[in-house]
Amino acid sequence: MELPTLPPLRFVNAGYSLDEADVAILGVPFDSTVSYRPGARFGPRGIREATWNLEDYILELDVNLATDIKISDCGDVDVIHGNLAKTIDQVETIVSALQKRKLAIGVLGGEHSMTYPVVKALSKKHDFGFIQFDAHFDLRDEYLGEKLSHATVMRRISEIINPENMVQIGIRSASIDEREFADKLGSHIFTMQQIEKLGIYKIAKNAVKIMKNMDFIYVNIDIDVLDPAFAPEVGCPEPGGLTTRQLLDAINVIGKIGIDSFDVVEVSPTYIGGITAVAAARVVFNILGTIAKNKS
Amino acid sequence: MELPTLPPLRFVNAGYSLDEADVAILGVPFDSTVSYRPGARFGPRGIREATWNLEDYILELDVNLATDIKISDCGDVDVIHGNLAKTIDQVETIVSALQKRKLAIGVLGGEHSMTYPVVKALSKKHDFGFIQFDAHFDLRDEYLGEKLSHATVMRRISEIINPENMVQIGIRSASIDEREFADKLGSHIFTMQQIEKLGIYKIAKNAVKIMKNMDFIYVNIDIDVLDPAFAPEVGCPEPGGLTTRQLLDAINVIGKIGIDSFDVVEVSPTYIGGITAVAAARVVFNILGTIAKNKS
Amino acid sequence: MELPTLPPLRFVNAGYSLDEADVAILGVPFDSTVSYRPGARFGPRGIREATWNLEDYILELDVNLATDIKISDCGDVDVIHGNLAKTIDQVETIVSALQKRKLAIGVLGGEHSMTYPVVKALSKKHDFGFIQFDAHFDLRDEYLGEKLSHATVMRRISEIINPENMVQIGIRSASIDEREFADKLGSHIFTMQQIEKLGIYKIAKNAVKIMKNMDFIYVNIDIDVLDPAFAPEVGCPEPGGLTTRQLLDAINVIGKIGIDSFDVVEVSPTYIGGITAVAAARVVFNILGTIAKNKS
Amino acid sequence: MELPTLPPLRFVNAGYSLDEADVAILGVPFDSTVSYRPGARFGPRGIREATWNLEDYILELDVNLATDIKISDCGDVDVIHGNLAKTIDQVETIVSALQKRKLAIGVLGGEHSMTYPVVKALSKKHDFGFIQFDAHFDLRDEYLGEKLSHATVMRRISEIINPENMVQIGIRSASIDEREFADKLGSHIFTMQQIEKLGIYKIAKNAVKIMKNMDFIYVNIDIDVLDPAFAPEVGCPEPGGLTTRQLLDAINVIGKIGIDSFDVVEVSPTYIGGITAVAAARVVFNILGTIAKNKS
Repeated sequence: MELPTLPPLRFVNAGYSLDEADVAILGVPFDSTVSYRPGARFGPRGIREATWNLEDYILELDVNLATDIKISDCGDVDVIHGNLAKTIDQVETIVSALQKRKLAIGVLGGEHSMTYPVVKALSKKHDFGFIQFDAHFDLRDEYLGEKLSHATVMRRISEIINPENMVQIGIRSASIDEREFADKLGSHIFTMQQIEKLGIYKIAKNAVKIMKNMDFIYVNIDIDVLDPAFAPEVGCPEPGGLTTRQLLDAINVIGKIGIDSFDVVEVSPTYIGGITAVAAARVVFNILGTIAKNKS
Repeated sequence: MELPTLPPLRFVNAGYSLDEADVAILGVPFDSTVSYRPGARFGPRGIREATWNLEDYILELDVNLATDIKISDCGDVDVIHGNLAKTIDQVETIVSALQKRKLAIGVLGGEHSMTYPVVKALSKKHDFGFIQFDAHFDLRDEYLGEKLSHATVMRRISEIINPENMVQIGIRSASIDEREFADKLGSHIFTMQQIEKLGIYKIAKNAVKIMKNMDFIYVNIDIDVLDPAFAPEVGCPEPGGLTTRQLLDAINVIGKIGIDSFDVVEVSPTYIGGITAVAAARVVFNILGTIAKNKS
Repeated sequence: MELPTLPPLRFVNAGYSLDEADVAILGVPFDSTVSYRPGARFGPRGIREATWNLEDYILELDVNLATDIKISDCGDVDVIHGNLAKTIDQVETIVSALQKRKLAIGVLGGEHSMTYPVVKALSKKHDFGFIQFDAHFDLRDEYLGEKLSHATVMRRISEIINPENMVQIGIRSASIDEREFADKLGSHIFTMQQIEKLGIYKIAKNAVKIMKNMDFIYVNIDIDVLDPAFAPEVGCPEPGGLTTRQLLDAINVIGKIGIDSFDVVEVSPTYIGGITAVAAARVVFNILGTIAKNKS
Repeated sequence: MELPTLPPLRFVNAGYSLDEADVAILGVPFDSTVSYRPGARFGPRGIREATWNLEDYILELDVNLATDIKISDCGDVDVIHGNLAKTIDQVETIVSALQKRKLAIGVLGGEHSMTYPVVKALSKKHDFGFIQFDAHFDLRDEYLGEKLSHATVMRRISEIINPENMVQIGIRSASIDEREFADKLGSHIFTMQQIEKLGIYKIAKNAVKIMKNMDFIYVNIDIDVLDPAFAPEVGCPEPGGLTTRQLLDAINVIGKIGIDSFDVVEVSPTYIGGITAVAAARVVFNILGTIAKNKS
């Protein structure tokens, strides 16, 4: 008789070794600079848990994550709660090491500041295109006296990549300083009001055009881009956002030109089975689905 | 055979005897095969509770449930938790008895597998049209080793009715086997992506056309057809679904050709006043409203 | 060294004295006549708390609440739970006093009946236009034996202002008596079905036309006008309603002709950071933003 | 007519100035090093809110907080989320300033690490007695690479006061290293098992004996000393703890010899009216009650 083995709480279908893998999943359970509603540290756990309840097969992309792509769940970065500097170093070191293997990297946050070390590691040698889905610019120069936090992360990223290669989708909240800085920055901004008028398909196709000549495309999803009705468990809920359907449609369109790496951040689940983690897991699945399709 | 006795928390305005009634309401508080999030056993209770907070008069149909239709709440089937076979027998026996009275039957689930014995009892002599609102095909041949469960219920139903008389609306999740089986099955499938493109009115009108020659129309609503934002308390939440507004619009259109019986399943309320049960109650009200209008 | 002072739980940026202020914020934490789900007494508290997490700058109106308008939070009216008559007197007395100062008044409810004494105080000398966002008519003549309650408030208001100057937007639930009364009343009604067909922009523009000749415009927002997915924590949830995006779009359009005073009622928060209070705070911000723009 | 004033969300009956006050209440809403369940930042808010629902008169001590003691709520320390070092400096500076006024200081946490700067400020000139109620020793030398965090706070405190003047009550969880260190430390340990055997009165009296010759007694309450049934909303729930009754009994006994200052930490409320904050508020009331009795 065989004893049952413990199902690890890892991303579903992600039992491949790094040597075999097309994609590495990495959790970053850090949330120390969150200013309003903490809990993003439970994001990686919540998203992984939710993946076990979704179909491997993705109907709307006609692709099967169980057979068409090899995923390796590398576990969580060993974050140090309260120590942003050290945690950032950790993330950058690990992502740099992973990137040598020429696989896609999918980061599960954790707070938005964690996107910074990932981009720092990945953007070094590439003509780097960055697509941000977010309710907020996150373009402050500093926040509560700190240079790097969830509220300044895009400002820091705009200093290490070409802002003209940045697309910001779903924006509906800003400080006046951010607004003025954004005007000068030269990034491509699509507000919720524009999405309401033009439709999400047109916006997504515009993003595709801007990304055409990039040799590396990174998709960054702050889950608060969704309306609080669709993702209530986030650090800074901002009403008037995307539906999950609109976000999935945008990803399906953008995915056609090839997403090279991605993250999904600011998921702060409070209940097992809460809808925010389920929405995030669905988003990760569709990104993985587009990667699988481009591979074959 | 003895009919079940009434538990006190009954459907609003449903105090008529079976002899007088136009519609019989029947609860089936069974959820033993739910694979993810249990609680559908509380569905009948939650829906009934929520009905007391809705207006009897239905503004958008101009019909009054308190005066234009006679409802009899038959209470709950005496389910045996963990014993699917016996529970199915119970449901089939009771629905068969009710059906002799030539009234509409409205079943409040309970898990989706409970639709099977209802259809088995009702479909015997009719040219039977079946409209399913659902996020999932539920067309697996077996699931976790079982031939009948919430994940296989439509496969079993497709074996006892003509699949060409089946319409499946809102589908956005499937295993690859289900997808392939569905392609061969010959049922009429309207995915969420098609609904997004064509609009819910056009889809509902297509369903009406397919149902034109049926002499009995059954509407089956797995509440997870709604997006988790509109119905978070379900067994298998699947992001990217219908709004409650879209589902009500579809029912108002389909109801014009005459709904003969129906069920609403997979409601798993956790809070009194939770939005899932309220949405389900609203859906049942609108179905009853269309039945009342066709009656007069 | 300076000791820290206690930040009072008041509306953000609302530290101006009444002498300086453009707008007075007034809480009315009363919910004694709520028939289904109590908790509106926590509405003022929940909305105020949520305002601290929103940007002062309103991106979609290009206006800054921190610099472009002076807000004075007057605190809460001293309500007497269970004593509607005395509480109404309190509200009317305070609003009458405030109104002499020629500033806009923003009331945070509290149950919908509290709109009555506010309108009574404000409508005396004006050609008074009233725009109601609501799932319900609230036009009953009496409810549970009472002449004034959340369910009759618009009937009472229709007796003290000209019904032809009333606009009712988002209606989707009514008793048959209300429906018949509404037909005779002569108010301008826009149901959810009409909004679905014509779009929220067209409806908002129609409201603007009707209000053109008014010299005072009052906007009354029963937060249950939103779908329960966007505002679950309300007294009487009614499925099939507006999205927060639609409500904000309507306010942005209507605000162009000048909102003179307003209330947001029936917010019944149960969680810190719950989405209903956040949505309500966002709505109040956009109304204040339109007031600030018209001022300059 | 008088306009209503805004009731600030402060500790009840705490409107005295520092010049008049017997006790200063200080909130420290910091939780960045919490390793499991964040939210202690909401502790001061939750405890203050809960105080408004308790009787001013304390039956079991025959003392009235509204008349027998003067309380000044100083508000919250201006913490910097994610920056432990700066926050500690802030707390130490403020407590040092307060202490010159010869009043008792009551700190509302916030995470347990915040006890360290309070003790650092208060213990300088005194023969300092420290009574800790806690499920955990918190005697680790470092935790996740950090020298100061909620898990190491008592180790750090043991380095600046005489460990023989430390009493640790309610302990039921430890690493093996902590256990070994505790054996050598020389502090007075009363585990839950000893409390079960001897009863809480005997333990409290033993604590009183140990404290007899101290000229300053500090009581530190990590609310997780309570069983999760009595305090579920904590950072690190540990089953098998004190009942709230036992904790209050211990405080009533210890309070007879004079509590000079205190804190209540690790309260992480998620609901308005949640039982953890209510239990914490009750504990603070009884400590204040004993201070009031000793004063007169």
